[in-house]
Amino acid sequence: MSLLNLFFEAGNLKKLKRTGWLLRGVPVPESIADHSFRTALITMFLGDELRRKGVEVDVERAVKIALIHDLGEARITDIPLPSQRYFDKVEGERRAISEMLGENGMGEYAQLFDEYENESTPEGGLVRFADRLEMLIQAIEYEESGFRNLDEFWGALDSLRRSEFYPYFKDIVDDLEKRRKGKKVVTP
Amino acid sequence: MSLLNLFFEAGNLKKLKRTGWLLRGVPVPESIADHSFRTALITMFLGDELRRKGVEVDVERAVKIALIHDLGEARITDIPLPSQRYFDKVEGERRAISEMLGENGMGEYAQLFDEYENESTPEGGLVRFADRLEMLIQAIEYEESGFRNLDEFWGALDSLRRSEFYPYFKDIVDDLEKRRKGKKVVTP
Amino acid sequence: MSLLNLFFEAGNLKKLKRTGWLLRGVPVPESIADHSFRTALITMFLGDELRRKGVEVDVERAVKIALIHDLGEARITDIPLPSQRYFDKVEGERRAISEMLGENGMGEYAQLFDEYENESTPEGGLVRFADRLEMLIQAIEYEESGFRNLDEFWGALDSLRRSEFYPYFKDIVDDLEKRRKGKKVVTP
Amino acid sequence: MSLLNLFFEAGNLKKLKRTGWLLRGVPVPESIADHSFRTALITMFLGDELRRKGVEVDVERAVKIALIHDLGEARITDIPLPSQRYFDKVEGERRAISEMLGENGMGEYAQLFDEYENESTPEGGLVRFADRLEMLIQAIEYEESGFRNLDEFWGALDSLRRSEFYPYFKDIVDDLEKRRKGKKVVTP
Amino acid sequence: MSLLNLFFEAGNLKKLKRTGWLLRGVPVPESIADHSFRTALITMFLGDELRRKGVEVDVERAVKIALIHDLGEARITDIPLPSQRYFDKVEGERRAISEMLGENGMGEYAQLFDEYENESTPEGGLVRFADRLEMLIQAIEYEESGFRNLDEFWGALDSLRRSEFYPYFKDIVDDLEKRRKGKKVVTP
Amino acid sequence: MSLLNLFFEAGNLKKLKRTGWLLRGVPVPESIADHSFRTALITMFLGDELRRKGVEVDVERAVKIALIHDLGEARITDIPLPSQRYFDKVEGERRAISEMLGENGMGEYAQLFDEYENESTPEGGLVRFADRLEMLIQAIEYEESGFRNLDEFWGALDSLRRSEFYPYFKDIVDDLEKRRKGKKVVTP
Repeated sequence: MSLLNLFFEAGNLKKLKRTGWLLRGVPVPESIADHSFRTALITMFLGDELRRKGVEVDVERAVKIALIHDLGEARITDIPLPSQRYFDKVEGERRAISEMLGENGMGEYAQLFDEYENESTPEGGLVRFADRLEMLIQAIEYEESGFRNLDEFWGALDSLRRSEFYPYFKDIVDDLEKRRKGKKVVTP
Repeated sequence: MSLLNLFFEAGNLKKLKRTGWLLRGVPVPESIADHSFRTALITMFLGDELRRKGVEVDVERAVKIALIHDLGEARITDIPLPSQRYFDKVEGERRAISEMLGENGMGEYAQLFDEYENESTPEGGLVRFADRLEMLIQAIEYEESGFRNLDEFWGALDSLRRSEFYPYFKDIVDDLEKRRKGKKVVTP
Repeated sequence: MSLLNLFFEAGNLKKLKRTGWLLRGVPVPESIADHSFRTALITMFLGDELRRKGVEVDVERAVKIALIHDLGEARITDIPLPSQRYFDKVEGERRAISEMLGENGMGEYAQLFDEYENESTPEGGLVRFADRLEMLIQAIEYEESGFRNLDEFWGALDSLRRSEFYPYFKDIVDDLEKRRKGKKVVTP
Repeated sequence: MSLLNLFFEAGNLKKLKRTGWLLRGVPVPESIADHSFRTALITMFLGDELRRKGVEVDVERAVKIALIHDLGEARITDIPLPSQRYFDKVEGERRAISEMLGENGMGEYAQLFDEYENESTPEGGLVRFADRLEMLIQAIEYEESGFRNLDEFWGALDSLRRSEFYPYFKDIVDDLEKRRKGKKVVTP
Repeated sequence: MSLLNLFFEAGNLKKLKRTGWLLRGVPVPESIADHSFRTALITMFLGDELRRKGVEVDVERAVKIALIHDLGEARITDIPLPSQRYFDKVEGERRAISEMLGENGMGEYAQLFDEYENESTPEGGLVRFADRLEMLIQAIEYEESGFRNLDEFWGALDSLRRSEFYPYFKDIVDDLEKRRKGKKVVTP
Repeated sequence: MSLLNLFFEAGNLKKLKRTGWLLRGVPVPESIADHSFRTALITMFLGDELRRKGVEVDVERAVKIALIHDLGEARITDIPLPSQRYFDKVEGERRAISEMLGENGMGEYAQLFDEYENESTPEGGLVRFADRLEMLIQAIEYEESGFRNLDEFWGALDSLRRSEFYPYFKDIVDDLEKRRKGKKVVTP
């Protein structure tokens, strides 16, 4: 049993900065762990909300997916979009996370990553939704602090709107967009 | 419904550094979110391991506790030990998290914080165990990188050993201590 | 005699960042010591100016107040406004500074903090004026460098205008406001 | 009257790091303002202590000297020792501070810098003592945190011992040295 | 032979930040080495381009000049413009680089610095052109990321236009200016 | 002609930190550009030294190789060793640099990267030697500043010793090793 090794390796996610922000000039951007934390938090609240609204979703499973959805980056790092022309990031990440977990006797978790990557389960799809939402909240925070150059991230707004979960969280997505446009948002 | 406000406020945990490390001279230490992320990850793996070993523990509940166990610090910040002579940190944190969640219509989560703080449920106790374990793993990482001055954190090792969960994770705690002492650790 | 301990503890003010800026997204903001330094410098120049204008003010006392006005934060840290709903910051700071000085045989300085906090002497009021002025100068610097999100700090401008010292430093305060509005300021 | 300009320019001392530490590998060292703050604080406490011991010293003057002793570096920056083979730093700093103050109608303060530089008054000598003491306290803090490579700074210990103020603060200097050697220091 | 010493000393250029950006509020700006790297890269591409266009230029020499054009700053640091009223920076830098190279048995390179400083050869002039171009590219990057306060750097655009090399690189300089003005630049 | 695009893209090398140091706990390590700068500088001095010793080497070519040897990382980032189990880094880097240069009309430089990667020319081999030497100099600098955990980098010492250039630079390599062992090194 060497879970301890896995916990040490997960520490890389604290040290590695999210390269998307970095390459657009945010001086000391969030870490991958920072992002993963809020993604899991969002997943938890949205998952429970869905349940309240009668949607069947396994919140435990969803939160677990969120916690490991970027765990493979402890080995492969946060390879940015331009790099993905040269590497099959998804395949590399899949192998990395699978080996990380396997080496540490935790192989059964590896399939969670696939659910996320392929959005093959409601829980995987929910984490994908939460992952994009988290990124856009962070983008607004940087923009409100004065950073520019982040327009291209906002393509993710369309992905949110195409998600099966959009109907349930329309208010959140719409408020997000309004906030970006600088409108006062009235929340009941 | 204004979950969105809550998600924005949780962003403070990315910006705030853990003051314990900072005050001992680690130049750019981990954020509170960094710590919360790995605490939740550890909670997940240990919780499932407990279940495998026949211990009844609600892993979903435990992971949720982990995700919010420092959420109140988004308002009160990471008040360090010397400060706690002058403030009732626990009471302040309880009120902060309770208001944060209440204002955002998520009041039912507030009791999770109490379970953690009082270790009043197995899940609360497990997160406490994970919280301390996470801190010690981070301490070793800093020490292995050359930082000194972190001895006093190691009092937490005794707390781990007094925990009801120690018998299940004796290997992890012992390996941690051996690693600190610079011994090669053989893990089967 | 253990002044040395006090000097070491004061070193915390170099490590701790001002949370007000941090939480609004300034990536690596000034330290509390940075702020205290310029506050003391401003106090010195304004105090001497007052004396020249015939106002009776004890500049030595004023500068001393400035040097210790945030010294208690070496123990309690820079607890931000939202946190002050949950803690009596002023009372905590008073006790902290009183103990810090007392433990180190310097108890007689503790009353200087009260003069500042209560503006109970001209010197205390002057440091309060300098403290706010310093913050606004820093706010402009951040804004001129591109940071946004700092509007709420500018409420302090009204406090400056209500101060008994405003009539003597009207030019400074007015120039500050003009500079913020981007007007060229002509200074004789 | 354009004191405001002077206050803005003093802001450079917050942005500029002390190059001595930087060049020896301390990643994010203190600012010049950080150093100036604690030097002024030390000057205040030592000055009052001297007065209590019957030494005639003008504490107001001493603290003022401390506040401006590095003010010229707002223009010339913290030129490190190896650079001083190529520039007459003291002469440059004298001219810089003299012009900074003169341009802003505060020319009368310029002589304070000379008192410090030449140790031509007790107050100037006291600030020099405090300046070196502050540096050594900082050096220990960095060393206790794990940083190495700072031996050459400790030559300043001899300067402290040769100072006219050493007899009054023998305990502080000796405790400092003992602390560096890792001995427990008993302070009555 | 002690080239090794020289290589160690050159490491200072990695630690020292470019003070021009720093003093205008860029939080963690590029190092001198960062700047020197891209200046050398630009010099290489422009030099080869000139050769292709039939201009006689010794590219090897030019790139060497670029690599050492700021090497003296390893000793004197990046003394900013306001400081240069008080020091003869060029003379100091010349002596510094001359001694650095001389002490390490590499005296013959010292003249390269003079070619740059005096633009006394085509290669020296080309590096000057590349040095300014590099700075303006960096300025745009900071501006596009949201930083302000950098207008005064743009005076260098005129220097570029007055350069003997401008006719060959008119497109680059013009595109740079257009990009700053936010126009879409069509590049064939 | 869009060299300008290439210069902008090269700016990524300033923003991206070297992940090897980062993952071992160096808080704010050098950038890729920092490393590339000193590698090019070392290449220049060693190349000229070789020429003096009668070895035929094209120094212009060697320095050019050094300047672009990590240019592909502007797209693929500094993928660390553990990641290279999952990606063919060399192949990806080759394609990246080839496209970067090709898109910008500079395709003829792409072969320089192959000379470095395959050490297929003396110049390519020299840059490989300089690249490793640079890394070890940086490793010592970090170690001398107090950082630990860098032992595994020192395997590169053997690579240096196996290089065809080792006989010419035995002194440098040996002095480096002695310096690491803390011996005073006497250099004639």
